[in-house]
Amino acid sequence: MIKFIMKDYLKVIRDNPIFNGFVISIIVLSALSVGIKTYPLDNTTLLNTLSVLDYIVTVIFLVEIIIRMGAEKRIVDFFKGGWNVFDFIIVAVSLIPLESTDVVLLGRLLRVFRVMRLITFIPEFRKIIETILKAIPQVGYVSLFMFIEMYMFAAIGSILFAEIDPSHWDNIGLSMLTLFQVATGEAWPDLLSATMAHQPYSWIFFVVFIIINTFILLNLIVGVIVDLVASEDEEATRDRLLLEIKTMQDSLNQLLLQKEKE
Amino acid sequence: MIKFIMKDYLKVIRDNPIFNGFVISIIVLSALSVGIKTYPLDNTTLLNTLSVLDYIVTVIFLVEIIIRMGAEKRIVDFFKGGWNVFDFIIVAVSLIPLESTDVVLLGRLLRVFRVMRLITFIPEFRKIIETILKAIPQVGYVSLFMFIEMYMFAAIGSILFAEIDPSHWDNIGLSMLTLFQVATGEAWPDLLSATMAHQPYSWIFFVVFIIINTFILLNLIVGVIVDLVASEDEEATRDRLLLEIKTMQDSLNQLLLQKEKE
Amino acid sequence: MIKFIMKDYLKVIRDNPIFNGFVISIIVLSALSVGIKTYPLDNTTLLNTLSVLDYIVTVIFLVEIIIRMGAEKRIVDFFKGGWNVFDFIIVAVSLIPLESTDVVLLGRLLRVFRVMRLITFIPEFRKIIETILKAIPQVGYVSLFMFIEMYMFAAIGSILFAEIDPSHWDNIGLSMLTLFQVATGEAWPDLLSATMAHQPYSWIFFVVFIIINTFILLNLIVGVIVDLVASEDEEATRDRLLLEIKTMQDSLNQLLLQKEKE
Amino acid sequence: MIKFIMKDYLKVIRDNPIFNGFVISIIVLSALSVGIKTYPLDNTTLLNTLSVLDYIVTVIFLVEIIIRMGAEKRIVDFFKGGWNVFDFIIVAVSLIPLESTDVVLLGRLLRVFRVMRLITFIPEFRKIIETILKAIPQVGYVSLFMFIEMYMFAAIGSILFAEIDPSHWDNIGLSMLTLFQVATGEAWPDLLSATMAHQPYSWIFFVVFIIINTFILLNLIVGVIVDLVASEDEEATRDRLLLEIKTMQDSLNQLLLQKEKE
Repeated sequence: MIKFIMKDYLKVIRDNPIFNGFVISIIVLSALSVGIKTYPLDNTTLLNTLSVLDYIVTVIFLVEIIIRMGAEKRIVDFFKGGWNVFDFIIVAVSLIPLESTDVVLLGRLLRVFRVMRLITFIPEFRKIIETILKAIPQVGYVSLFMFIEMYMFAAIGSILFAEIDPSHWDNIGLSMLTLFQVATGEAWPDLLSATMAHQPYSWIFFVVFIIINTFILLNLIVGVIVDLVASEDEEATRDRLLLEIKTMQDSLNQLLLQKEKE
Repeated sequence: MIKFIMKDYLKVIRDNPIFNGFVISIIVLSALSVGIKTYPLDNTTLLNTLSVLDYIVTVIFLVEIIIRMGAEKRIVDFFKGGWNVFDFIIVAVSLIPLESTDVVLLGRLLRVFRVMRLITFIPEFRKIIETILKAIPQVGYVSLFMFIEMYMFAAIGSILFAEIDPSHWDNIGLSMLTLFQVATGEAWPDLLSATMAHQPYSWIFFVVFIIINTFILLNLIVGVIVDLVASEDEEATRDRLLLEIKTMQDSLNQLLLQKEKE
Repeated sequence: MIKFIMKDYLKVIRDNPIFNGFVISIIVLSALSVGIKTYPLDNTTLLNTLSVLDYIVTVIFLVEIIIRMGAEKRIVDFFKGGWNVFDFIIVAVSLIPLESTDVVLLGRLLRVFRVMRLITFIPEFRKIIETILKAIPQVGYVSLFMFIEMYMFAAIGSILFAEIDPSHWDNIGLSMLTLFQVATGEAWPDLLSATMAHQPYSWIFFVVFIIINTFILLNLIVGVIVDLVASEDEEATRDRLLLEIKTMQDSLNQLLLQKEKE
Repeated sequence: MIKFIMKDYLKVIRDNPIFNGFVISIIVLSALSVGIKTYPLDNTTLLNTLSVLDYIVTVIFLVEIIIRMGAEKRIVDFFKGGWNVFDFIIVAVSLIPLESTDVVLLGRLLRVFRVMRLITFIPEFRKIIETILKAIPQVGYVSLFMFIEMYMFAAIGSILFAEIDPSHWDNIGLSMLTLFQVATGEAWPDLLSATMAHQPYSWIFFVVFIIINTFILLNLIVGVIVDLVASEDEEATRDRLLLEIKTMQDSLNQLLLQKEKE
């Protein structure tokens, strides 16, 4: 009995906008503290405040997630939402004590991931992530295709240029990184001039790679736009068709009725 | 009585194309004078001319805005238009005397903002601004999302690379500026080679950041295009539906009439 | 009488695919000769050949344009087509003797413009030019808007940075060129680091400029796409509407006829 | 008789998903071996393993293509599919013994092309290639147009800057490569500053080239998007129209039947 009253009480808290606003401000506070810590801080008072703040944030996050877990009918229901699981992991991980000097870097990095709660907590940001995730199967094969294409060019680049410019083409891993830089439109004139001196036809490699890459990328972007426009159109058409049929039937009914009266 | 005649007279001036053409040429003149002043001028005659021109422009702008304010039924109506308020502020601010050597820089900068009157005065430019402003809520959340994403990457970058390459990653502010440069596709191979020497896996940071950023940007652009095309379609559909219904009714009427006659 | 027969004869030549193929190959030959001349040529035989070739091309172009002018009913008709006028100017200009050493550079540049005949001669290329010209009014105001925006930023940049980095910001002309480089995504980190040392807040100038510029450009691209899609849709809709009305009338007619028979 | 049973047997093998999965894993294995060989390998055991693996892959590819050829009714049918021909060439070429030290580079490059079998084997990747090939006529003329435009600018650049900056503008070939770098948004401020010192108006050349190039590229991208959206629309419209006509006829039939009953 008490458990049920408790559950309803927790639900009221969870759905309270003030509670949500409070949690968001705590997340923002935690994000700001992550930023402040990257500046050199000589002031011990500030350092201590930030350290205490960190503990407070951890505790509030823990309490908040317990409230949200308790508000569900069964705790298992809480873990059915992908966002809840994600949130739970972030909070759980930040509970691990990593204050020893050995893993201080890891501890600081984990604090950064708490900023991600801003995205998991605010529905508008969740939607953006969901839109991007939904686009992945659409772009998945094209991305894999680009990967294979880059792998092949990286293998060729490595075979041709490894001895000429080893800092960029020594092995296939380095070559792929170099080609990724070329694909983002970076510094390929420098790479070209390094290889041109020994292999005067190396420009063909770069020009072909850039043209093919641009084509695939263009194909990817245009494909996504056309798909989305088409699916929007389809939806709009379906709605309109229903309306049109209804309107037509109404008009016919009306006219036939009129005629009958005459 | 006189006041009303005065008001009508001012309205006639305000709506006169010659008056508007004159104001535009004064704005262009003021813009040119801003440009000329950036060249080293040894000729005192020219300097004096520009100085006098500046006073004349200020006076004409003042007279013009008074005419436009006077042409309204009530002066309050003038301030109801956002563009008028903006225009008024530009003119009012340029009346502040800033000729003393202390604030000469500020005075020169304020003169530049008078060039903005070209945008507030010509309707076609106003429309461009309004289109961009209308797109802001659409892109607002995605921009905020990108900001949070860059903040997180900046925090991670600062934690990992602050000691290796302090000129780019010393604190979160500097890191965000560095990441903004990476996002505009600038010089990241240099940043990478600076960090790779000490942390051979730092390429993961850059590659992941660039891929995520590209995805979000693509999402933003595609979203705006699809939304606009869909809304254009919707409008076009509405118009067409009305026409279709009307045409159908006409056709039916005509046919039924014909049949009755037989 | 003879004149008319002559005219018909010229028309037959002008519309002959072999004649057109011959002219195209002469244009390509002339283009190749322009390219070959940029290489150091020690071989006097080749130089003489190219020189003779140049005269032959000039004569063939002259004959060709006379044929096309003669084939029209009146010579005035020839000049009614914009492309013909353009073609005529290219051929006429290349007749000017510019072989003296003083103007040899100008003479060589004029030879390059003869390559443009490839574009004026082949209809598919004309269409591309016409499509681009048609888009100009659409993008005209946005381009002018960008120019004003860059002018203002150039003025501000010149006022703020002229003394710190005179090689990039000395006057408004140089500043606009610098900002054009920033707008094409070039080397702004270098510009930033040059100014940051003296004015730590100069990053605001660059970041604001890049964001505003990206917004305007995005607006321009999206605007053109949406406009074109909408106009294509409109055309398609008009065609379909006509078809729909016709189909509906046919169906009604058929059904009413059927009913009458019963 | 035996031949027919054999053929059916081969067909069963060819269409077996396990067989296809096996071939894909062999292709992936061959791709990985290409990558591994770009790293310095001191371990002779590994080198020998890779060498043996290479022979095994070659044999499996040969067996696989014989199975696929044998499964067709006539061997000629196999060569009717473009992808089969492509596949056959890759396998056939890798049979050529190129292990002698003279042509070891060519042998290694040919091994890379075997990775392309991943694309010819997996239908999703074939579709991407086919989409890109289908777009070529659409972009063909624009590409040729861009080539002519770059050729002309390269000729002008070579005439104007060959003596000032010979490392970039010495002849039309080098100039085109330089302009291709400018078109991909690379390092043109450096090129500009090299020429500006001697020819203060050389910025006009670069600015005009970049603006024209951007326009043509934009035209290309927008053209492809609009074409694809329009063709999708047309298809959707055709489907809908058929549905609409059918629905209208049904409604009319129903109504007229109803009326008759009364």
